[in-house]
This record gives sequence, structure tokens and C-alpha cells, in this order.
Amino acid sequence: MAKILALTGGVGGAKLAVGLAQILAPHELLFAVNTGDDFEHLGLHISPDIDSLTYALALQNNTETGWGRAGESWNFIETLSSLGGEDWFRLGDKDLALHTVRSQLLRNGASLTEATARITQHMGISHTVAPMSNDPVRTIVRCDQGDLAFQHYFVRERCAPKVTGFRFDGIHQARLNPLLTDWLSECDGVIICPSNPFVSVDPLLQLDGFGDVLKTLPVVAVSPIVGGIAIKGPAAKMMQELNMPATAVAVADHYRGLINGFVIDENDKHLIEQIDVPTISTPSVMVTLQDRIDLAKACVNFLTTLSAS
Amino acid sequence: MAKILALTGGVGGAKLAVGLAQILAPHELLFAVNTGDDFEHLGLHISPDIDSLTYALALQNNTETGWGRAGESWNFIETLSSLGGEDWFRLGDKDLALHTVRSQLLRNGASLTEATARITQHMGISHTVAPMSNDPVRTIVRCDQGDLAFQHYFVRERCAPKVTGFRFDGIHQARLNPLLTDWLSECDGVIICPSNPFVSVDPLLQLDGFGDVLKTLPVVAVSPIVGGIAIKGPAAKMMQELNMPATAVAVADHYRGLINGFVIDENDKHLIEQIDVPTISTPSVMVTLQDRIDLAKACVNFLTTLSAS
Repeated sequence: MAKILALTGGVGGAKLAVGLAQILAPHELLFAVNTGDDFEHLGLHISPDIDSLTYALALQNNTETGWGRAGESWNFIETLSSLGGEDWFRLGDKDLALHTVRSQLLRNGASLTEATARITQHMGISHTVAPMSNDPVRTIVRCDQGDLAFQHYFVRERCAPKVTGFRFDGIHQARLNPLLTDWLSECDGVIICPSNPFVSVDPLLQLDGFGDVLKTLPVVAVSPIVGGIAIKGPAAKMMQELNMPATAVAVADHYRGLINGFVIDENDKHLIEQIDVPTISTPSVMVTLQDRIDLAKACVNFLTTLSAS
Repeated sequence: MAKILALTGGVGGAKLAVGLAQILAPHELLFAVNTGDDFEHLGLHISPDIDSLTYALALQNNTETGWGRAGESWNFIETLSSLGGEDWFRLGDKDLALHTVRSQLLRNGASLTEATARITQHMGISHTVAPMSNDPVRTIVRCDQGDLAFQHYFVRERCAPKVTGFRFDGIHQARLNPLLTDWLSECDGVIICPSNPFVSVDPLLQLDGFGDVLKTLPVVAVSPIVGGIAIKGPAAKMMQELNMPATAVAVADHYRGLINGFVIDENDKHLIEQIDVPTISTPSVMVTLQDRIDLAKACVNFLTTLSAS
């Protein structure tokens, strides 16, 4: 495969992204990242999915918390709290520096793509991290108690409210990142990382005809659901609340018409016959760096096989 | 004395301010603070003199650095630096929280006075810290190499450029803080803390007729120059560059027509006869809290004597 596009959200998808970056060169791999989770907070532009991917690719992700930056300290947020500031979003001292640099670049006229490039380069990342758009898209989680901005649902309310649907404000006005348009013209295949289908991948698919173009390419998706639970985040809980089974099968159904191949965990092997696209099973719960590399290889090989057929 | 107004800039003046706050109740003492040093940086509204006074009054000033907050950590600014951000202004992790809270309050429509009140209350300060104005005033230092915004001169250039004069942008449009207008109507006397006459006190004096009203009240100033050097900051260097002797005498001359009494250090006692207003000498280099209290008592007693005469 010459050029692969990887779609990813935050922490979960970033695990596979790290594996892909280990086996594919920057001219062979580009990351398209969800920005529907982005929000303005305390005067900062925060891009949680871009940041999770950035920290993961720089091997600076915090393995203690499962989110944020490694070796973090919390003096800012604790002092903010003592001064009566808004402290529900736990900004680490180092993490805050990244948001500040991005916000300053944006204020000075840089696009989100340019700001992301500056930051990733400073962190020693050679692959391109492409925000899905330079325009604002904001995921709204529809809940039985009312609509919530994504971070309010996800962080402030800890995913407790019952989900009834989603809305992506700005999605019809936002233009696809030109980097992605260019890459698509030469792209040989697409890998959808094991991210939340509803809030991490769907914003990408619904953006500016992006999903329609992807349908013309070989696409492999990796299930974020293993054994009926989400490896990371609220995907399984959302599926239950949306009255669909929390299974890899339902994820494949969600992507019907888009994907040409599906990857499920070895423990879900018995589900293969229920899935109506070519499917492989392989260890997909990534704990070590080698796990990430192994799954990445499996995905690329599978995509190559599908492209040849 | 029933009601005293204390004019102060940052670290140097704040030492006496702490002493005054120890001996006078909140209904007896109000602080009028220079905001000419304020600036916008990294999207934050920073008020260095208000903050220095706030930390000092809360007994949270950093005695190791001589500025900023006690028990500070530097993970934010070091990370910002590693990401290519603007790192010349050393923002500590805890200090940053204060600027963030203030900036957020201002964005939400609070005045600088209201934001300051919220912050000082959260830090357990019972005295009122009154910014000289809610409107922007920005001190520009005229240097032989060109004009510099105050923090660029003071922090980024470390006071190296040769000073030729000062300008206070916005001073003619800015209105005096209404808290100060109210206090002045009942005020019995004024103490000018040992702050830089040119960049900490002059902005206050030139603001919206404030200096003229002060001339109708008993005013005592404390010399920030002791033995030809400034206890804190570039006052002595500025005086030399402005072709005036770096002495307490020159400070008294600078305040001619305003002050009714002057306080110099015991080591400058021999200068008393050169000063043309009533002058006392007393230990004025404040190291301990007791030093601060002792000087505060001397100032208040002196002011009381002058008022009675």
C-alpha cells in the first residue's frame, strides 16, 4: 500500500494510530482526526482528540490517568479551584501549555491545521495530524434531560445522562481540511481506528462529502467494542441507550455501505458469521506498544488483501 | 486617623502595604493600586501590581524569587517553551490560575475591580484592593532605542535599555475607580508606599484628577531609594538615566507640591536638611513582617502628627 488514511478520535483510536505510525512512513500515512469534541474553555481552544493523538504519537500519553500528558502536575487546576474558577475540566500544568500555544497561534491567524503542525513538530512527531476541518464543528449529545455540549456530557457529567442521539453543529458549513482532500486523491485505502462510531467517527463521515469519497476506497474498520464492552469510553453505554446491541456486529452494521472489511477481537471470533463484510479476528486489546504494532500490521495486511481482490 | 488611602505599585510598595494591613482595619485602610503595568499576554489579562499586593496581603508572596506566588512550580512555562511558545514572562503554574480566573471574570463582564474583589476574597484578604481604574492605562517606557511596553522593558529586556521618559497610554480617557472617589470623600490622609515614583505612582497621580484631589489631603511618601540604590526594581537606574541624582532627596523633589511629609531610611538621615518638607528617618528596609509593621506605624503616626498641625 502506498498511501493510507487513518480516521481516529481520541485515546482508543490513538492506540492503533501509534502502531500504524511505527510501521508506515509519514509519506505513507496520514491521520484524519475528529474535531467535534473541540471546545472553548477558560479562553482556550481545546482539541481533545488531536491532543490525545499528539501525546500518544510522541509517546507522552499519561498511562496513569489514561488521558492527558505523561508526568503531569496539577498545581494550576488546584489553585484555580481554590480561587473559585471553573474546575470540572482537569487541565494539567503541562497540558495547559499545549492549549495555550494552540490558542495563541489561532489568535494570531493560524489555522487549526497549521497550529497542529507546529505543535506536533515541536513534540518530535513526523507524521501529519490533520484535523478533519479548520472550521468549527461541535458535537452535541442529545440526552433525555436535554442537549449537552460533548465535553459537558463526557467530562462534567461523566457520561451519566441517557443518550437519545447526536447533533454536529456547524457540520454543514465546515469544509474538509484541504490536506485531506489532497491525500484522498492519491489514497489507496482507509483504516477506521477503534474509536467511538457515533461521536468520533460519524462527524468525520458526515463532513463535506468526506464519507461519500471514502466509499470509493477500500475501507477497513476496527471494532471498539470487544465482548460487549467498549475498551475505552462510553460507546457500549451509548449503544444500549440507543436500543442497539453493544456488540461488534452492531458496529459493523453502523458502518454498512462504507466498509469493505471489519476487524474484531479474537474473543469475538464467534460473531464473524453475523457480519456481512469480510471480517478477521485478531487480538485487539492493545496494552503494549507491540500490541499496537501487531494490530496495525494485521489491519494493513487485511486492507492490502481487500484492495487486491 | 479614621480612613487612610495607601498608593502602591508592586513588590516594594506591597511590603509596607502588608504592614499597614496589620495595624489598620478594612474600614480604615484602602489600597489604590497602579494598573499601568497591566498587559495582555497569551490571552490573559495580567495585573502585576495588583497580583504582587494580593500575594503579599495573603502572605503568599514568593520570598525565594522575590516576585510571584509562594510554593510555585514551573511545569506550564517549561512546557510552553518546549512547544515554541512565548516564554519570556515566567508564569508559574499557580500564578497562571489567578490570571485565568481574572481573565474569565473580565470576559464574563466583570470590571477589574469586581474581579480583584472576587480573587482577594478567595485568598482570605479582608482589605479592599482597588485598581486605580477599570479602564486600560498602559505604561510605555521611552528608551533611547525606542518605546517599550512596560513589561517588555521590565521583564523581557530586564530594564537594560536606557530610559528617556514615560508615557501612559489611555490615561486621559481612563476614569478613576469609583471606590477611590468614594473613599476620597471621607479620607483623612494618604500614604505613598515605597514604590517606583515614575512607573508605579505617577500613573495614579496623573489619572482623572486624582493627583489634584490628593493635594487637598495630608500626604506622606516613603522613599524607595535608600543610600542611592532602589531597594527593589529599576528606580535608581531610571533616575540616573533621567539625569537626576539617585537619592531620597530627588524623590522628595519629584513629589513636591503633593506631599506634606517624607519618610527616609535611617541611613539617609544626613539628607534630611536637603528636603524641603517635614521628614522623618526610620528603618525602612523591610525584611521581616515586624519591619513592615514598624514602618507602617511610623508612617501612620507621622501622618497623624501632620494632620494635627
